[in-house]
Amino acid sequence: MKALSFKSLAQIPLLTDLPEALIDSLSKSCRVEQVSRGDYIIERHDTSRRLFFLLSGQVRMLDMNRQGQEIALAIIDAPTHFGELAVVDGYPRSAAVQATTRCEIASISPKDAETLIYSVPLVSKRVMQNMAAVIRKNNLHRLVLQQQNIANRLASYLLGQLPVGMTPTQKVCIKNMPTQYDLGILLGTTRESISRAFSQLSEEGFIKKEGKSLYLENIDGLRGLLEDD
Amino acid sequence: MKALSFKSLAQIPLLTDLPEALIDSLSKSCRVEQVSRGDYIIERHDTSRRLFFLLSGQVRMLDMNRQGQEIALAIIDAPTHFGELAVVDGYPRSAAVQATTRCEIASISPKDAETLIYSVPLVSKRVMQNMAAVIRKNNLHRLVLQQQNIANRLASYLLGQLPVGMTPTQKVCIKNMPTQYDLGILLGTTRESISRAFSQLSEEGFIKKEGKSLYLENIDGLRGLLEDD
Repeated sequence: MKALSFKSLAQIPLLTDLPEALIDSLSKSCRVEQVSRGDYIIERHDTSRRLFFLLSGQVRMLDMNRQGQEIALAIIDAPTHFGELAVVDGYPRSAAVQATTRCEIASISPKDAETLIYSVPLVSKRVMQNMAAVIRKNNLHRLVLQQQNIANRLASYLLGQLPVGMTPTQKVCIKNMPTQYDLGILLGTTRESISRAFSQLSEEGFIKKEGKSLYLENIDGLRGLLEDD
Repeated sequence: MKALSFKSLAQIPLLTDLPEALIDSLSKSCRVEQVSRGDYIIERHDTSRRLFFLLSGQVRMLDMNRQGQEIALAIIDAPTHFGELAVVDGYPRSAAVQATTRCEIASISPKDAETLIYSVPLVSKRVMQNMAAVIRKNNLHRLVLQQQNIANRLASYLLGQLPVGMTPTQKVCIKNMPTQYDLGILLGTTRESISRAFSQLSEEGFIKKEGKSLYLENIDGLRGLLEDD
């Protein structure tokens, strides 16, 4: 097992600015794994309660719809943590977590995770703030899925990536865009429909793709689309 | 302003088993209000950050869909708390809260609420556990709304009211059922469709209504409905 550097863990937003001794001790008790694209890090209904730190790469959180199709709840990028729900409430995992790229992952035992979450006030506060953000995003996402038109659903999603309260007047770059496949399972449609929606928004001059980055070229225009829906 | 008894506050699950001195001091700093059915306790986008305790009655949490129609996110009964999201993240209120019955409500200032939530470890833990429950319920609710058939949507909702992990073999009573109007805005349909769904499930012997109580008479049957959908 590879030793984990202090720096790797200290870059995780949940852990930044914690006392050095605490991060050092966490680094020593971490289990570190390299996972390949497509690997499952958590399976649905798992009863494991480890807390995970995504050191590099991207993962998708997956649920199943009633027809047994996978739907994406979220797509998240390093550096971040995941898996705190089962630590907090002790129930089986609500979602599967699958690597969408090669990832480096560290994890701590349920006991260490509980101590971290419940006994370090700064961590408790951050966990609450993250959960609050998840609840607000879920409410917004429900509105996104109500859009009948897929281009409008994509526009809604893109606007949802802007920081809360941001009212940009210039163009904005979204880095590490999820793949069209992931956007499909996130937005309740197919990869093909997402591809057509991208073409439509590009042709209308609202967005411009460059590799894994996407530029929102006309934010007011995107907002206008939604008002007309 | 009416004084608040120790007992009223100590029955709130967020506060049970806290030190007497703490509950006493909270009781003294509470603002107590009687609200009538239909009154708004919180308006959407409010920037107030008070924390509320529902001492008696029932409230609905309301959001707006893209067409400007009100949709219910949840319907909750006393004794409970609400409004912690804005205390935790400082953003405007994500949902409106409206009394569905006459209610007695106590509330504490943002400063007292922050101290309570962040400085009392048992309260921090309970806030996290409540938020975890909200996140899991939202995920389930999204599946409920995917049901095309309204009777199946209602069946899904009713099964969702059973405690997590419960596998009852006998009939179960759900007390304080929301009104058909509230079920309509919760389940994305009209009061009339909910009324028809109740009749259908009753005629098929799955449920029996008695006043504000509802008996699930055939839980396996309700589950079977959903598998056939």
